[in-house]
Amino acid sequence: MSAKPVYLGVIGVGGVGTAFLNQLSRLPSPPQLILLARSTQTLLSPAPAYTPSIAPGDWATAQSTPSITKAGALSVDEIASYLSSAPGRSVLVDNTSDPALASAYPTFLKKGISIVTPNKKGFSSDLSLWKDIFASAAQGSSLVYHESTVGAGLPVISTLKDLVATGDEVTRIEGVFSGTLSFLFNIFAPVSSSGSSAPWSQVVAQAKELGYTEPDPRDDLNGMDVARKLTILARIAGLDVQSPESFPIESLIPSELASLPSTPDGIQQFMTRLPGFDSQMTRIKEDAEKNGKVVRYVGSIDVPKKEVKVGLQLFDKDSAIAGLKGSDNIISFYTKRYGANPLIVQGAGAGGDVTAMGVTADLLKALERLR
Amino acid sequence: MSAKPVYLGVIGVGGVGTAFLNQLSRLPSPPQLILLARSTQTLLSPAPAYTPSIAPGDWATAQSTPSITKAGALSVDEIASYLSSAPGRSVLVDNTSDPALASAYPTFLKKGISIVTPNKKGFSSDLSLWKDIFASAAQGSSLVYHESTVGAGLPVISTLKDLVATGDEVTRIEGVFSGTLSFLFNIFAPVSSSGSSAPWSQVVAQAKELGYTEPDPRDDLNGMDVARKLTILARIAGLDVQSPESFPIESLIPSELASLPSTPDGIQQFMTRLPGFDSQMTRIKEDAEKNGKVVRYVGSIDVPKKEVKVGLQLFDKDSAIAGLKGSDNIISFYTKRYGANPLIVQGAGAGGDVTAMGVTADLLKALERLR
Repeated sequence: MSAKPVYLGVIGVGGVGTAFLNQLSRLPSPPQLILLARSTQTLLSPAPAYTPSIAPGDWATAQSTPSITKAGALSVDEIASYLSSAPGRSVLVDNTSDPALASAYPTFLKKGISIVTPNKKGFSSDLSLWKDIFASAAQGSSLVYHESTVGAGLPVISTLKDLVATGDEVTRIEGVFSGTLSFLFNIFAPVSSSGSSAPWSQVVAQAKELGYTEPDPRDDLNGMDVARKLTILARIAGLDVQSPESFPIESLIPSELASLPSTPDGIQQFMTRLPGFDSQMTRIKEDAEKNGKVVRYVGSIDVPKKEVKVGLQLFDKDSAIAGLKGSDNIISFYTKRYGANPLIVQGAGAGGDVTAMGVTADLLKALERLR
Repeated sequence: MSAKPVYLGVIGVGGVGTAFLNQLSRLPSPPQLILLARSTQTLLSPAPAYTPSIAPGDWATAQSTPSITKAGALSVDEIASYLSSAPGRSVLVDNTSDPALASAYPTFLKKGISIVTPNKKGFSSDLSLWKDIFASAAQGSSLVYHESTVGAGLPVISTLKDLVATGDEVTRIEGVFSGTLSFLFNIFAPVSSSGSSAPWSQVVAQAKELGYTEPDPRDDLNGMDVARKLTILARIAGLDVQSPESFPIESLIPSELASLPSTPDGIQQFMTRLPGFDSQMTRIKEDAEKNGKVVRYVGSIDVPKKEVKVGLQLFDKDSAIAGLKGSDNIISFYTKRYGANPLIVQGAGAGGDVTAMGVTADLLKALERLR
């Protein structure tokens, strides 16, 4: 295990991207960063020497370093060709949520470029892309790591893969998979009824102000983010889920407000009209309380029945799901070996630092295998 | 990543060992099992060809297979020499709890033989052995995996290593680390006071009958198993813990009964005299109840204060630790990145199948790097 050089390309410098670059800059023996791309600009170590490399903690400075090549946005083929010509194995870290880039993973993987990413799109879109990704990795002897696509840095994907690879039978996976929806329901319907009695629309507005929702909160309320995560877990558990649209998703967007455009004006209208639908959510909450329960937005996979479901469900007040705090995720794996009590993973499932941690840990695992 | 042959030696065919061999026999592309040792006998693939290999799911039959070499117990040097002469990389899986074998890990590792094990002894004895193990692995370019030394198959070691390796600051680790003590307190002091009111000695007797305790229950009640697990975690978190005796351990063995011999007769005497000390445990339980709390046996590591503690502690009835079921473990990691809400891992932390699962998953990770 003498250390061979490994070359690194990184795309995306948003919240996760910046946190990742910071973590990368503090690794004891980091790979050489030779490509750093954001939407309009690409920094490159000049070929054919692929040196000097870009300082990850200080990429803004690299923009004005004469020895670093600057280019506009490169095409997938240009990036793949540049990385695969480096004098060693290479890894592409995709810190975007771009579906177009995700659909190009097979191109990279076939050329021997490994992929590490928190981008859900490649693993939760059409089943054919999923199959293409793993077939291409086998063909190119390259690696794919995507821990942060579910539960951010929490050990969810790795745990499920270990259960499956060692021959356990996973029978059921359930939990709270969205930090945003966790926060909304922990505030809206707390276990102790002495808690908040703020109407639903007000809790949504509060979460939006705190930056806990997407710019358009409907991107959280439509359940699609949770559906994508469940698609990934179901596929690892062995189910051929065609797409996240192939199972029932309960949307929390009132149908009357679904078609408002996703423009600033449309979002504003949505927020203004949302209070008109508060009574629906209040009724659901109060019905739960009458039965001594609380309502939560959860996802579940019944493996033997091949059923995936995303939506509202009632839980006993002393259950682990009801007791969740802040924007925490909780994921329970029921398996043959673990018996009646599931293997549970719980903690922050969103945020730049913890998402980047999953990416960095994945990168370290890839490096261990490539060096 | 073309598959190079990897050769496997396995020591121990007890509960964990047998479950591991079963899991090994069902892997899609298992390594070649060339050595299988139990206390009195060793099966070997004949050198120098190191073929045929031993069928892991059917090792009893291998005993009567003429082409398999039979020997008595081999010395460490004999095993190391045999494995390191195999025509490829080799891995030794130690499924015993033997301290002598654990103290020989450096010998194996220096010769390039990787170690995978649930045996706590190598990692929780004197600090010099811990340091020797990892220095020897670096020297021999060999690997060390020991997930099942804490929490059996639960992702505890790997999670802590990821947190540390990616630069998070782990501030506190706490939890219930013993399946046996979890069971004892979940029965003795349940959250709902309408539960059992069986005296302590009766709960211990019940657990012993169910096979949940060691043959001598004092091996659980002395807290040493928990102290060993905390020693391992504290060391990974960066603390130089000299040995599991270098911090306070609260023993649940009445001092009057500590010196009874560990013979069948001594154990019998211990069980007979234990009811005489029930009032002490009842008082602790009732004092907790008066404050609306329950008592649990936990371990904790305060990293900045460099403090490790093992013993009884009171918990709110709605806390995750109080709500634990059966013989489950729960481990909470408090870190800078995760903030106020810890990263929590929970589930069965003992049992042959789940312990073996951690060993098998570790072996698969070693194979990914060695092939």
